[in-house]
Amino acid sequence: MSADARTEKLVEGVLAGEVRAVARAMRLVDDRERSFHDLLKAIYPKTGRAYVLGVTGTPGAGKSTLVDRLIEAYRAQGKRVGVVAVDPTSPYSGGAILGDRIRMQRHFLDDGVFIRSLATRGALGGLSRSAGDVIHVLDAAGFDVVIVETVGVGQDELEVTRLAHTTVVVMAPGMGDDIQAIKAGILEVADLFVVNKADREGADATMRDLEQMIALGGVLEKQGAGPTARGHSAAAAAARAGSGASGGRWVPPILRTVAVKGEGVDAVIEACEQHHRFLLETEEGSRKRAQRFEQEFLGVLRDTLLHEAERRLGTAIREAVDAIAERREDPYSAAERMVGSVFEETEE
Amino acid sequence: MSADARTEKLVEGVLAGEVRAVARAMRLVDDRERSFHDLLKAIYPKTGRAYVLGVTGTPGAGKSTLVDRLIEAYRAQGKRVGVVAVDPTSPYSGGAILGDRIRMQRHFLDDGVFIRSLATRGALGGLSRSAGDVIHVLDAAGFDVVIVETVGVGQDELEVTRLAHTTVVVMAPGMGDDIQAIKAGILEVADLFVVNKADREGADATMRDLEQMIALGGVLEKQGAGPTARGHSAAAAAARAGSGASGGRWVPPILRTVAVKGEGVDAVIEACEQHHRFLLETEEGSRKRAQRFEQEFLGVLRDTLLHEAERRLGTAIREAVDAIAERREDPYSAAERMVGSVFEETEE
Repeated sequence: MSADARTEKLVEGVLAGEVRAVARAMRLVDDRERSFHDLLKAIYPKTGRAYVLGVTGTPGAGKSTLVDRLIEAYRAQGKRVGVVAVDPTSPYSGGAILGDRIRMQRHFLDDGVFIRSLATRGALGGLSRSAGDVIHVLDAAGFDVVIVETVGVGQDELEVTRLAHTTVVVMAPGMGDDIQAIKAGILEVADLFVVNKADREGADATMRDLEQMIALGGVLEKQGAGPTARGHSAAAAAARAGSGASGGRWVPPILRTVAVKGEGVDAVIEACEQHHRFLLETEEGSRKRAQRFEQEFLGVLRDTLLHEAERRLGTAIREAVDAIAERREDPYSAAERMVGSVFEETEE
Repeated sequence: MSADARTEKLVEGVLAGEVRAVARAMRLVDDRERSFHDLLKAIYPKTGRAYVLGVTGTPGAGKSTLVDRLIEAYRAQGKRVGVVAVDPTSPYSGGAILGDRIRMQRHFLDDGVFIRSLATRGALGGLSRSAGDVIHVLDAAGFDVVIVETVGVGQDELEVTRLAHTTVVVMAPGMGDDIQAIKAGILEVADLFVVNKADREGADATMRDLEQMIALGGVLEKQGAGPTARGHSAAAAAARAGSGASGGRWVPPILRTVAVKGEGVDAVIEACEQHHRFLLETEEGSRKRAQRFEQEFLGVLRDTLLHEAERRLGTAIREAVDAIAERREDPYSAAERMVGSVFEETEE
């Protein structure tokens, strides 16, 4: 079979929702094979149907447990669920983390659940790109919900949440001092806060902290102190009064769960549905949807650029590193030289 | 004054260790001005003297407090200390986090301390690149120690630690379940573990967990299960017996601190010095130093590529996003088209 025919067959399998075809497509995505762009181009028109749910938050907050409960709840509704686990350990360990493997085993016999953890490949490669590709494959294969779960809390992870329709930020009571910093970044990506382990001491304090953060976000926005994505001034007023869609703006609700006991999970799903409707029905929602396209395209563009540059530069990269290590050249001159060698000269 | 003359003057100021010149150079680094590469090229030959210390770890572990204590201890030794705070909130909030601002104020009158937090600029930009640039500026300005502190625990943050000579991973007792996942990634970058808040319940358990992680890393390495950077099999055996340099390999020691009271900080500095000597005196050490050059150059190359591509593509990016949002084009075809338009056509 020719490469084209193989890709075509694979596309058919994915679009028919065959789990084995999906798994094979995922390997293609990982390995950045030639046929990989062809596959993605072919399935792209069939995407856009899945609801993409991002789950992020501080380590130890119980994200994995919550995601497990969400899978169960969606399965009970008869929905097919894909999970993309974004894992900061991957570039180093090169594979799925232990917890993922356990989880995968548990859902092994259920064709309605597909779990995939992501690794970064290539010296210059990125993460959010692969996440976007994997979401498309699952979407095209007819998964109704795609949950993107991040393990870490860093720049790449925050970027990945931009690929989601709804981003749930999970916290746990009493997470210490520099949580404040994490929250500041997370606030702007959060559509929904979950205080998990809500039966523990300190849950009320965490709820109050979050309310204050939302209120502070509102004040900063009023003062024009920073580019806040959503209306936190509205949120400030509404945080205590209520939440959800309010006057054309979305106010992130704060929910309590005890995921390990399954408590509060249905309310999370309900709030996600509300947010999804908000996206589809309001102007702010359509702005956010447009941002998703932008975020995704920038990821694809960046990755395509870096991949092509790496292919063209090849061993020259290695040589440059040696020259720099021996202090024969500085990294800036070397980079300029190499970039100059791959780009068209006609500019300027 | 011409741009060249201005850059020259700035280079002089930086090399003379003038804090105001350093601050001005930092702004250049941020704004990616034209003269920015020129500045970095000019100062590069004067770099390579500073000891670069990475501090990372789970949120809430007390990293900032520990870094503060390290600053104090190094200042007491008469050393000048630069701090680069890598902050996952920056791409969203566009500025320094609150804690940093407080810290900066505290050291405001001390010319021997320079604190800088990092933001990501540009749609396609990266983080580790800027960190490398800032380290060079501080290094060239005669700062003896440059501490790179990450707030988040994600891919970018782990990459940043690769720029450091020594990476200290800070943990606190009882950080919950998915800490396990974080540890797996962190294990491979850690030269030194610190269990902070060691006066709290659960400190012994965290110490044991870490020892087991190190032992597990050794087992995995023996089985060839993954590319582990350092010798964790040696570590497994030596974790209980001792630590530090052992048979040509470095076994990450595990130290206890109560940073808020200053307890154990001197031992951390002593262990860092041991590790620094190890890097300078052993073969494994020189391998690690070579990796730093590679890591740094890849960051510079990536950034230069993306910056140049962004400059050349300009409004075409915007147009492509619109086309994709309207489903007139798929992101993969658009990216290929755009990458094809900027690269030399002579290939293949």
